[in-house]
Amino acid sequence: MKMKEEKAVVVFSGGQDSTTCLFWAKQQFGAVEAVTFDYGQRHRREIEVAQAIAAELGVRHTVLDMSLLGQLAPNALTRDDIAIEQKEGELPTTFVDGRNLLFLSFAAVLAKQRGARHIVTGVCETDFSGYPDCRDVFIKSLNVTLNLAMDYEFVIHTPLMWLTKAETWQLADELGALEFIRTKTLTCYNGIIADGCGECPACVLRKRGLDDYLREKAGVERP
Amino acid sequence: MKMKEEKAVVVFSGGQDSTTCLFWAKQQFGAVEAVTFDYGQRHRREIEVAQAIAAELGVRHTVLDMSLLGQLAPNALTRDDIAIEQKEGELPTTFVDGRNLLFLSFAAVLAKQRGARHIVTGVCETDFSGYPDCRDVFIKSLNVTLNLAMDYEFVIHTPLMWLTKAETWQLADELGALEFIRTKTLTCYNGIIADGCGECPACVLRKRGLDDYLREKAGVERP
Repeated sequence: MKMKEEKAVVVFSGGQDSTTCLFWAKQQFGAVEAVTFDYGQRHRREIEVAQAIAAELGVRHTVLDMSLLGQLAPNALTRDDIAIEQKEGELPTTFVDGRNLLFLSFAAVLAKQRGARHIVTGVCETDFSGYPDCRDVFIKSLNVTLNLAMDYEFVIHTPLMWLTKAETWQLADELGALEFIRTKTLTCYNGIIADGCGECPACVLRKRGLDDYLREKAGVERP
Repeated sequence: MKMKEEKAVVVFSGGQDSTTCLFWAKQQFGAVEAVTFDYGQRHRREIEVAQAIAAELGVRHTVLDMSLLGQLAPNALTRDDIAIEQKEGELPTTFVDGRNLLFLSFAAVLAKQRGARHIVTGVCETDFSGYPDCRDVFIKSLNVTLNLAMDYEFVIHTPLMWLTKAETWQLADELGALEFIRTKTLTCYNGIIADGCGECPACVLRKRGLDDYLREKAGVERP
């Protein structure tokens, strides 16, 4: 497989993980596009951030309307009036059942139309949180199903699948994108770019990973 | 599995096949719902026919907006301005890539929310026409993928998978629904209910199957 001559579609939210995937894909493939799903996110800012990053990186960017998803699964990620909570052993209330299944299926329809065999997604078992459609076994099963559904040889790439957050920052650094991702992506549940609010679970996870990586890079032992 | 005590969601278009599936499901399961996908069909009448049938059968009916699909894959089924043609060895121009994948995935999200494990679809290898996502192997792969995606024990049922059109009419007859399906469903590409225009490929297929079945039933040999 001559990946340098082939085309990839990156599932792209404008967050740390998918932006790292976008840089990774630009290094791996001859041509790269990004697709973002507009499903009534808590913050419209997510879509704007994704658009700004794609424009800055010169990547063709498609925003697909997935408002149907909000209709099917109202919850904290899609409704401003539900607080984000997580009780031990429960799925976070940000969970939309089958979301990655739907996003990756639409990404595949788009990819085939664009003549792209490769689909890149930032899903990751490491910060699993109980989402069944972030598991590697799901992704592999879906890859077979997509190929059968469309009689096409898709290859789903998950460069972050087994990385810790610290290792994802390391990958960003190796791709020459650490400062870009640190300052221009949006992960925060409160819609604040870069380091975010510093208090929501997404910010805490992101900061802990960055601190861990920077400590390692500086040659200092973790406590 | 005590199917009589369980709930099923039927993927329902108001055509012959899915209406037969709806009658079949009502016989098999304790509770049945129908879901129809509005993807900018050539004829708005399809949605109305589906609504009328569901109402007459007393089945809860959900119409989901899939207009996104038309945006992704403009073609003959979704655009009034493209003629329906089929050249030998080619897919009919009614083809929407990955349509069953998307419909069944959304049906599964809905089914889980309604507490239904069972999903019924009228897909059929017999009148395959080259649609890869009508194949049995695709359905079985998708079943595994859905179960992994949502950590749920879905069972996809395909009562028509191996039936000819004549055998589908026979099943309708055995379910006591032959006249209902003959007079109240819409299969015709020109949007005409019951026997339809009589000239489009869907009408020709439907009539040939019905004639074959009625001849067999009458004990007359086929020519």
